[in-house]
Parts: sequence; C-alpha cells; structure tokens
Amino acid sequence: MKKKNIQASIIIIGNEILSGRTQDTNTGTLANWLNSIGVKVSEVRVIPDIEEIIINTVNTLRKKNDYVFTTGGIGPTHDDITAASISKAFGKKFEVHKEAFKILESYYNPGEFNEGRQKMVWMPENAELILNPTSGAPGFYVENVFCLPGVPTILKSMLGSLTNNIVGGEPILSHTISLRTVESEIANSLTKVQNNNKDVEIGSYPFFHAGKLGVSIVLRSEDKSKIKNCNSQILDFIKEKKIEIVDR
Amino acid sequence: MKKKNIQASIIIIGNEILSGRTQDTNTGTLANWLNSIGVKVSEVRVIPDIEEIIINTVNTLRKKNDYVFTTGGIGPTHDDITAASISKAFGKKFEVHKEAFKILESYYNPGEFNEGRQKMVWMPENAELILNPTSGAPGFYVENVFCLPGVPTILKSMLGSLTNNIVGGEPILSHTISLRTVESEIANSLTKVQNNNKDVEIGSYPFFHAGKLGVSIVLRSEDKSKIKNCNSQILDFIKEKKIEIVDR
Repeated sequence: MKKKNIQASIIIIGNEILSGRTQDTNTGTLANWLNSIGVKVSEVRVIPDIEEIIINTVNTLRKKNDYVFTTGGIGPTHDDITAASISKAFGKKFEVHKEAFKILESYYNPGEFNEGRQKMVWMPENAELILNPTSGAPGFYVENVFCLPGVPTILKSMLGSLTNNIVGGEPILSHTISLRTVESEIANSLTKVQNNNKDVEIGSYPFFHAGKLGVSIVLRSEDKSKIKNCNSQILDFIKEKKIEIVDR
Repeated sequence: MKKKNIQASIIIIGNEILSGRTQDTNTGTLANWLNSIGVKVSEVRVIPDIEEIIINTVNTLRKKNDYVFTTGGIGPTHDDITAASISKAFGKKFEVHKEAFKILESYYNPGEFNEGRQKMVWMPENAELILNPTSGAPGFYVENVFCLPGVPTILKSMLGSLTNNIVGGEPILSHTISLRTVESEIANSLTKVQNNNKDVEIGSYPFFHAGKLGVSIVLRSEDKSKIKNCNSQILDFIKEKKIEIVDR
C-alpha cells in the first residue's frame, strides 16, 4: 500500500522572479508533476539569491515536508550560490563531486571544460546526482532536498529520471465542471455541497473566456468515488438552477 | 527625501496555484508595479486556502516588511476565507463594512445584491477599502496588509488607485546587456566586475531565443551612475573577448 498525504515544498531561488523581470513557470511544472505522482505541494516560496535566506528557508521547509525542491542558482556564474548554501544548511563540506566532474569532462570538447564550468561540479559532500539530458550539468540532492536548475526547459527534462527517487502517495484526482454563471449565483449551494463532502476539496474559479464570464468548479480528492458523489450533488443544483454547463 | 530600502512581501493564496492548475501571474504584475514605485519584493509565498496558514503567514511577514500584499480568497464562495483570516490575524472583529455595502448595493441591479454577494462586504473592523473599477467588489487593507483579488485582470485594475497609499523608496533602476555567448565564458570576468561593484546587483540569465543561445546580464541599483560605471566595465571585457551584443 502506498503512503498517503505525502507533501513537498518548492523554493524558487532568484532575484529575477522577485523583480518581475522573469515570469516563473517552474512552480506549475513541478506542481503538475508532483500531483501526478501523488505528492501534494504544501507551499511555494520565492526568495532572493542571498545565502542566509536560502539556508534558513531550506532548513525550515525540509523539516516540515517529505520533500523540498529548489530551482535556480546552480549555474556557473557568481550569482549561482545554491549549492554552497545547501552545503551550509546541512553542515556538509562543499567539494568537487567526482562523478559530476567526469560527466562534464566528457560532455565538453577537450579544452572547453574551463574554470567557469568547473564551478558546476562543486556540491555538498556525498550529494546524489540528478542527471541532465539537456545540457550536461547535473542537479543533486541531499537527504530530502532536491536542487534543480532555473531554466524551465532544462528543469523539465530532468524530472523523468527523478520520478524513481520520489515515493508518492495516492495520486490526487481532480474533476472540473465549467458553468455559464457567476460565483455569487452558486455560492450558497456550493457551500452546502462542501459541508456534505468534507473530504473533497472544492475550488471555485471565475474565468473570462471568448468574451463570456463563467465559473470552473474543481473537485479534488484521492478517492474517485467521493469525487463522483460530490459531482452528482453539484449537477443536482445546476439542473435546478437551470445553469448551462460549458466547455473551457 | 524619499525613504530608501522599502520592502514588501507577496502572499498568493490559493490551492489552484499549488495544484498546478492555474499559472500565477499576479506575482509578476505586483513585482513590476512595486519596483516601479521603489518597493523591493523581499519574498513571495504561495499558500493554500487554510485559515491557520494564512494567519501565521500574514503575521510573520507583516512584521518583517513595510508592506504585505495578498491575492485571492476575497470572492463570494466558501473557499474565499482571506478576509475572515486577516481579521483573526489582527485580532479584529469580522463585520459588514458599511461603505463596501453601499458600493455593492448601488453597483448591482435591484434584487441582485444577494446573500452570496453580501459575503464580499464582510471585512476586518475599520478596514480601508481598495476600489475596484472592474467588478465592483472592493479589496481592503488593515495597517500594512493589502488584500487584493486573485483574478489577474481585476487585480491589475486596482493598482492605480493604490499607488497613493504606498510610500516607496528610490525606484530601482535596471539595465540589461544581452550577449551571444554562454554563461561559463563570462563567469570569471563577471565575478570580478561584481566584486568591484558591490552596490550593483548583477544577475546572469541564459536564454534560448530564435534558435540561438545567449545570456542576459541584468544590472540593478537605485543609483544610475553606479549602473553606468558597472556597465562600462562589462563592455570592456565583452570587447576584449570579442563577444557579440544582441537584442532580445
């Protein structure tokens, strides 16, 4: 039997997100992947490239979660300080990772594995590697903290090999019903359904699509039959109120 | 003279972001706006619709920051619990806000201001309103905590009237140089420039655009002359290394 209620936090490390220059998409990528393997995201924090803040955030969240994922700050430049900060968070030596060194030495042409690139093989002592099929330089993990790069395409390509390292719970199932209505028309009925279905997470999300307003109701649970039951109670009041169901 | 180093945190409240269903864009909107009025974003937290977590997060961050902005959870449905949670965070009564009631009563047609909609005028005692030119229902603030809706277009439309309520510092200026190179080719030179320009935040961001790799170097400071000085040192090593400057 799989463990239930496995949870993870995500730490997005990077001044470029906090300044508004770059739109983060790694949260969505990681959240969708984690949900698909039965891990619930409890919290996301976006923090700057400041060692003390990285250390404190990692140490707070790794104790509260089954897993922690960091993105960003493992490249070759001066502002890439994640690996050194993780070493300090765990009180581990920061040293050349021999396997990572070999991987990058053979990845680059002779003479190209320069000082800048060699910075990327410095990791906490005994870190386990996360292979990078896109650009060579591996990520790593220490205990339950998994460190991934910030570049979205590279991050995505590294999740496949990671799936084996994560023990998830029951996948969280979801079902969406989209309606041609506004939230205030269904708020009371929806509250009643939520009260009758405490184990199902019911979310209500207004949308504006193709020039028309609507509301998506999202039901989430690990239990298919509970979603089904909740769904039929919602369909009952929709029918009664003569609300149109729409595709989104 | 304006105050310097004003900082804010953003709290994105909503299960739909944590599940990966919805891509957050409010962080970018708020961060860009705050930067433009001289407020630095220190941290962003994405948290679920759980009262205890909202209360703890608000109470932690409002003490550490000049301003806190929350998004989400102020609509009419059962999962909108931000206003009640903020009341508890401040130990204030949760009650009908008379001015908000009047605004919505006159916004809707007679008979349309139903029980669901009336939920949106319940706020912490003595909250100040944030007007909503898009859909009527106001946001609010209590002391330094500003509560905005989660729908991106509505949130955006409410920032204009808010600008007068925020005392910013010097606007944070930025300058970007985009290069046809890879990070490891410039990492050492960039480290030297950073060491010579401690007051300028230098970020290095790889990109892949129109089929080609490149790196954007972003310089950030409140002081134009410091950016200029730092920029010329970067142009020096770019010239020496014969690296092409590109538009992005």
